[in-house]
This record gives sequence, structure tokens and C-alpha cells, in this order.
Amino acid sequence: MSKKLTSRAEDYSKWYNELVVKADLAENSAVRGCMVIKPYGYAIWEKMQAELDKMFKETGHQNAYFPLFVPKSLFEAEEKNAEGFAKECAIVTHYRLQTDPDRPGKLRVDPDAKLEEELIVRPTSEAIIWNTYRGWIQSYRDLPLLINQWANVVRWEMRTRLFLRTAEFLWQEGHTAHATKAEAIAEAELMNNVYATFAENFMAIPVIQGLKTESERFAGADETYCIEALMQDGKALQAGTSHFLGQNFAKAFDVKFANKEGGQDYVWATSWGVSTRLMGALIMTHSDDNGLVLPPTLAPNQVVIVPIYKGEEELHAIDDVVSGILKDLRSKNISVKYDNRDTQRPGAKFAQYELQGVPLRIAIGPKDLANGTVEIARRDTLTKEVVPMDTLIDVVGNLLGDMQKSLFKKALDFRDSHITEVENFEEFKSVLENKGGFISAHWDGTKETEEKIKELTKATIRCIPLNNNEEAGVCVYSGKPSKERVLFAKAY
Amino acid sequence: MSKKLTSRAEDYSKWYNELVVKADLAENSAVRGCMVIKPYGYAIWEKMQAELDKMFKETGHQNAYFPLFVPKSLFEAEEKNAEGFAKECAIVTHYRLQTDPDRPGKLRVDPDAKLEEELIVRPTSEAIIWNTYRGWIQSYRDLPLLINQWANVVRWEMRTRLFLRTAEFLWQEGHTAHATKAEAIAEAELMNNVYATFAENFMAIPVIQGLKTESERFAGADETYCIEALMQDGKALQAGTSHFLGQNFAKAFDVKFANKEGGQDYVWATSWGVSTRLMGALIMTHSDDNGLVLPPTLAPNQVVIVPIYKGEEELHAIDDVVSGILKDLRSKNISVKYDNRDTQRPGAKFAQYELQGVPLRIAIGPKDLANGTVEIARRDTLTKEVVPMDTLIDVVGNLLGDMQKSLFKKALDFRDSHITEVENFEEFKSVLENKGGFISAHWDGTKETEEKIKELTKATIRCIPLNNNEEAGVCVYSGKPSKERVLFAKAY
Repeated sequence: MSKKLTSRAEDYSKWYNELVVKADLAENSAVRGCMVIKPYGYAIWEKMQAELDKMFKETGHQNAYFPLFVPKSLFEAEEKNAEGFAKECAIVTHYRLQTDPDRPGKLRVDPDAKLEEELIVRPTSEAIIWNTYRGWIQSYRDLPLLINQWANVVRWEMRTRLFLRTAEFLWQEGHTAHATKAEAIAEAELMNNVYATFAENFMAIPVIQGLKTESERFAGADETYCIEALMQDGKALQAGTSHFLGQNFAKAFDVKFANKEGGQDYVWATSWGVSTRLMGALIMTHSDDNGLVLPPTLAPNQVVIVPIYKGEEELHAIDDVVSGILKDLRSKNISVKYDNRDTQRPGAKFAQYELQGVPLRIAIGPKDLANGTVEIARRDTLTKEVVPMDTLIDVVGNLLGDMQKSLFKKALDFRDSHITEVENFEEFKSVLENKGGFISAHWDGTKETEEKIKELTKATIRCIPLNNNEEAGVCVYSGKPSKERVLFAKAY
Repeated sequence: MSKKLTSRAEDYSKWYNELVVKADLAENSAVRGCMVIKPYGYAIWEKMQAELDKMFKETGHQNAYFPLFVPKSLFEAEEKNAEGFAKECAIVTHYRLQTDPDRPGKLRVDPDAKLEEELIVRPTSEAIIWNTYRGWIQSYRDLPLLINQWANVVRWEMRTRLFLRTAEFLWQEGHTAHATKAEAIAEAELMNNVYATFAENFMAIPVIQGLKTESERFAGADETYCIEALMQDGKALQAGTSHFLGQNFAKAFDVKFANKEGGQDYVWATSWGVSTRLMGALIMTHSDDNGLVLPPTLAPNQVVIVPIYKGEEELHAIDDVVSGILKDLRSKNISVKYDNRDTQRPGAKFAQYELQGVPLRIAIGPKDLANGTVEIARRDTLTKEVVPMDTLIDVVGNLLGDMQKSLFKKALDFRDSHITEVENFEEFKSVLENKGGFISAHWDGTKETEEKIKELTKATIRCIPLNNNEEAGVCVYSGKPSKERVLFAKAY
């Protein structure tokens, strides 16, 4: 099998699809739109999960688990939410199979096992959770309720792509309940901030925090905060969202609490989530034509060591030296793999680890043993250097730290150089077509203009940046007055 | 709300149901047979997951993720497996809802959105995984393939109980592929052994490792290994199973590999799993009429500290001392919670932590401050002792260690005293009715006898213990010759 990828310049979309499969991250399954996350891809996702889970717990949240299914009558209780997801719901209607009388050895749905009420496979869990919260919240003493769930959800998308848009995906969804509007808004902002910190510090992906316009909001939310990232092809990717849900779900599910003054109030809510879509963001932010590039924080193996040898004797000598290196690196919490398989040649191993984005590759041969050196190759810059064995541990630590910073810096420079202010619609279309990236432009604040621009250019308003400058201007499309710029882009 | 539980002697089943809900572990949901795992219950499950995951990785396994849905044509490919699960499958038949023209604001299933092929919500994942493995395995170099998945599964059970039998449950399922029969059997035995070690060392639950009889085997397996535990009411509980699947799935899904000799062989398989059912085993093994009792390894909080005070000044003095204790305990990796809420009285707090099984409760009042002492109450024995503050850290460490051992010992003594050898069917029935527990009896090895005994007594063969003694005898029911004893019990 050729490991050579289509280049990004040639066909960015094809490059992405090939990379995901060839780097052993994920593949399509026999189920339309559902993916298999392969062990290497899943190991990266586990690292994201562990870090996010720690950050959620540090901000006072607890995990719980709610049912996969939502009875239709609960699903439709919050009308906007239901309407928003109705067209992409997988629906369970029966609970039993039986032998097919017409096809020996085959099964068919048992027509007598029809459910009285259909069950929706959760596309999101507000309905089932708020129906549960009604029993958990009586008094202000029960608030805030700060809960997160790690789960699979299903949204029957018609056009799917590995990680970016799949019928089933893995995610976390936080669902919190508060006594006041201010507290709920503060929570939504806090969690959006957690996502931004995670994206930038851990995934090395620069993001812009902002608010969605009304038409881009989560169905059922009063306000949606988001983090928006920019991919190398100039398209934006929404990497996480945090919603202030007002009292919409509390009202739909009748969740009231006794306040300190003895009255009854509806509870205020938030929800927030990130998903395996982050894998897509990770891949498209850092990788190159040779394959995956991973920030060291997310690499299942940060270092791989490959012996270069002829015959058993040379291999044994290398094995001895490497066993000490492994111990030293692991004592510094650096994950390292020694690949001394004799079924693969060094060149094939190099190609594999390059494709899979292992940050540092160390090669050791007989000459190195004689000279007390090793060769270190760095995945992001593709540079190599020969270093004395006795400085190896420090060099590795420094290179990993530098790489983490350098990947972020590179992505940040790219992003910042792809935010373009435009003043009229001709410029808007020209920048969008020729340069891509975010377009910072005045907008008159109407749904009609937003829709029209989308129709004409496929660009959507990605967000109204938080802490946006107030700046009087005129809408890039309608010429009507505007008080601030918003960010447009084509998006994943 | 009264926290008082029904006693075990009065009604064991009611005691269990009340405990699960009152200790905030789980509750029933709006979806028939599906539970909500509450934060406190989920925190215990997370501890189990973390330890199991570590043990799986230490034995060379990697995690991955496969689709929730199984197309019907794949589901039915391995006939025995399909037949075994057909009657309890949730089935997705449609992928869209639409506005109900007859009920404004309500939704109905869109009749035009019927799937061409129905999707089964996985009751177990052999089918979808082996269909995937066909693409992953070409050569002996691709073997063994050692993969685990953490997931939710659905089995449409008619009679459900929290944790013990629910329509949806959480579990892990290992699915491995091997070049030889011997390797696959060794893997199935290894993982059953991992489960036994986990149950005994981590959960303090003594288990018997054994083989299932043919009629109790997993549908599609050639051999099922299991760990069987004994609950306090004398009923057995199957706590984990590990299956040697032979070449059944390889043949059903055409998974062959090029062996070292250049020929093509079908792959050998195992699968193994434990689920949130372990929560039921945990609760029923250790808990008492006052509530949950947790081994320290599984306690979300191993220690809780409750201040006894009047007025702010006393509280501040206690706060100061406690902040040092918290730091010291945490530096020893002991999890501790300081509950200085002023909305609850100490008595209410004591009752809550007793109900929730916190292993050690420390009370500190002004007298303690004056004397340099604290009072420690131990959950399993319900004993209290006053200890000097300066020995506290060591005392806590020792008590936690002792408690872990002591809970196991207590459960082991109970289990061992409830394995009764019987020689005839009158004795069998009498022991089963009056004493309960495992009955060690000779069996003639036939399905007919096994079925008859089950029909007459509700007892099933829990397992044929591994390393069973060979001992000639006659079947307790049929009088036919037998070469070894097997273990019968009524079971969850």
C-alpha cells in the first residue's frame, strides 16, 4: 500500500480523508455515516478526554450518565430544540426480532413488538436530563447543579466526513442548573473559556471566542458562545459551544425551586459540549503533506526510538543502551516506544511514524554507539540533529516543549494573517475566494442580510467576537448602519 | 424524607432498591428499563473503569470505538449469536421526525424516512467488530489484535432492576483475534483472571472462576469462562465473563489470515466483558442495614471531616486545624472531603455519610481542639475511637488498609461458609431453601438434568470451577455417574 498522501495544494479534502485513514485514526464502517475510531485515533481522543475531564472537575463539575433514548413526548416538550433536531433523529420503533418465515436462518422485525411510544436516539440530552432534574431540584440549596456526561449521540446527517460530521459521534455534554440568570451566564462563559484554554494550551489550536448570531444558535438556547478555529485551507471550524438556555427547558419540563425568599422560581440553565470533531480540528490545524503532526501533549507516543543495525549482535548492543534511555525518559513522564521489530526495515518505520505524527524520532546505529551520540528528527520541522547521548534527556524535554509552543505560534500566525477587514461586498467576495480565512466586516444585524450573504457566498457569520471593539460603520452588504464588525467565513 | 432503610432481613430486595436510590447511586428514568446513574454512583463506576482500563493496557490491549448500530444483515450473520439476542433488540427503523399535522406543536415519525435496512442498537458488538476486523487482518503479522471498547449497550429486558438488569447499561467489551486456538484460549483465561484479580483485590469481592455449561454459554461462544460472586442473601451473581469464540465469527465474517507457512487460516477469537452490573455486586456484597459500605479503593471520598461547633469563632478555629489535616491526607493520596456546610446539622451529615458508605468519618469539636484529639468512626464496623491529632495520618492510612482487607475477609468467610456439598436431591432442595449459597453437587453432564433441576428449584449451574477436583460420584438428580462436582445456586 502506498503511504504517499495527496498534497494539500492538490486537493485539501482528499488529503484529509486519506490522512485520517492512512494514519490509522478512523475509517468508515458498514453503518452509513458512522465511523470506527481506530486504536491510534482513540488514544489521542483519550488524551483529550482526560485533560477536559480534569478541567471540568477542577471547575466543580461531576460526571453522571443519562439514558441513550428519549421518549418522543419528552423530546418534543421544548419546541425549538425539538424542531431543530427533528430532521436528523434515529428512531427506535420496535424491541424484538424474530425468525423470518420466508428466509431460513434470517431475522425480521417482529411486527408484534412495536413500542407504544417511539424512542429517539439522543441527538443531545437536554430533554431527558431536564426531565430528570425536575426530581433533583426543590430548593436553592440544590443549586447550582453542575453535571457533565461523556456519551455517544446520533444525528442523522446526510453528508458525512470522518470526525467532522458523522451520524454517531462521541462527546461530552455539560448540563447545569442555576438559581439566577447571572450565574447561568457566568457558567456558560466560564465553560467557553475552559474550551478556549484547552484548545490553545493543550491542542495548540488558536481560537476566537464569540457569540453566535440568532440564526446560528443552538436550538433552544437564548445565547450560544463558541470557539472558532481556522483550518489551513482557510475554512473555519466551530470547535466547541456553550449555551445559555435561559429558562426554556425549566419551563418546558416544569423545573422550579424554592428561592431564599420562599417563592418559587424557574431554574436557569446552560449546556456545553465538544466532540470527536476536535480530532478533525487537530488534524487540519497542524498536519502537512507527509501526514499527521501532533502537539506533544496529544501524542500517544511522544518519542519513538528506531535501531539501525545489521545482525543480532549490533541489535543487542543497541537494546542495552536504549533500555537506559527508555527508563530515563519515562522517569520524566515522556512517553516513548522502542520499535525493534525485525519484520520492518528502518525506512518503513520512519515513514510510518512520520505519517502518524510522532513528535520526535530517535535513530541509533553502531556509529552512534561508538561516538556516544544519537540522531533526533523533529516531526514538525522535519529537521534532524545529532546530539551527545548524555544530553539526550534534556534535549528531548526541550524539543517537546519548544514544539508545543512552535505549533501554536505557527497556527496563530496563520490565523492572524487570515483575518481580513473588508469594507464592501466586492472586497468581501474577492477575499473569500482568493485568500479565505475570517473576514471581519460590518453587518446590519438582520437575519435577512445574514441569509443573503450566505446564499451568495456560502460564508456564514462564525461569531461576534467577545470583547469586540465598538466601531460605527455600514453593513458590507446592505449599507445600513452597524455598530461592530463580525467574523464571516466558509466553515466546516 | 426518611433515610431509614428497610432491613435486609425484612426484605432484601426492597433493601437493595431503597439503598440504590437513597444513597444517590442511581434511579429509574422516564425510559422503560433505563437508569440514570447519579454523580455519586458514577464516581464509583469511574474508579472501577480507571483500574480495569489500567489492567487491560498492562496486558497489551488498546481501546477503540465501533458504531452503536449494527445493520440487520451483519447482526444475523453469526446465527447462534443472532438467535441468542434477537428477542431483546431495540431496532431503529426511521431517521427523521416531522410535524404532526393532527397535533400542532407535536412531532411524528416521518413515514417517508424509513431505513432500507433496519439497524440494531448493539446488544454486544461481535458482529460489527468482526465485520471490521476483516479489513484489518491480512497476515499473521497483524495478530494478535487486542482491542477493548468502553460503550453503552442495549438489551430489551422485560424485568429490570437498577444496575443488575437494565435495558441500557455501560460496559467494556474486549474483542481479540489470534493466529492459534491455544493463544485464543490463553487470552480468554488471562482476561477472566484479570477480572478475578480486579474483583478480589480492588472490589474486595471474592469470586469463583469457572466454566459455564453449554446451555449457560454466551451465544456464539465455544467456551465461556466466568467469575461468580455470592451475595448476602445467598444468591449468586455472575460478575464477569470471558468467551473463547473459536472460529465462529471468523467464519461468519470471512476473516482469514496468511499464516507463516503461506496458507490461509480462519482467525481465532475471544470476547470478554464486565458492566455496571458490578455496581450491584459491590452494593450487595458489603452493605448493611445502615446503607452502603464501600471498600476504600472505590470510595469517591475515603474520609469525610465534620466540624462540631457553635458559632463562627469555633468554626474558624476548627477550619484552621482541618486545613492542615486536609493537606497531609491528600499528600498521602487519601481523598478527603471537609463538610463545613452550615445548612445541615452534624447529625444529618453523619447519617448521610453512613448511608453513602464513606469509609472513615472524622468529627472535630472544641473539646478535641483543647485535647489535641479527633474522633474517627469506621463505616464497616461502626466503631469509634478518639485518637491524638499527631497520629491521625498514620491511623487513617492503617484503618483504610485494614478495612479493605477486612471487607474481603468478611465476604470470603461468608462465601466459604455458603458452599455446601450435598449428596442427594432432598438435601439439595433443603440447603437451597434453608441456607442458600452455592451447592456443590455431582451432575451427570446432560442438558436435560440441568434443565430439570432449574425447573424444579430455580437453581442453575453457576459454573464448573477451574482446577476442579476430579471426584467420581453420582448425579444428585439422575443418579447417573459423574466425574466432578459443579456449583449450583439461585442467581441474579
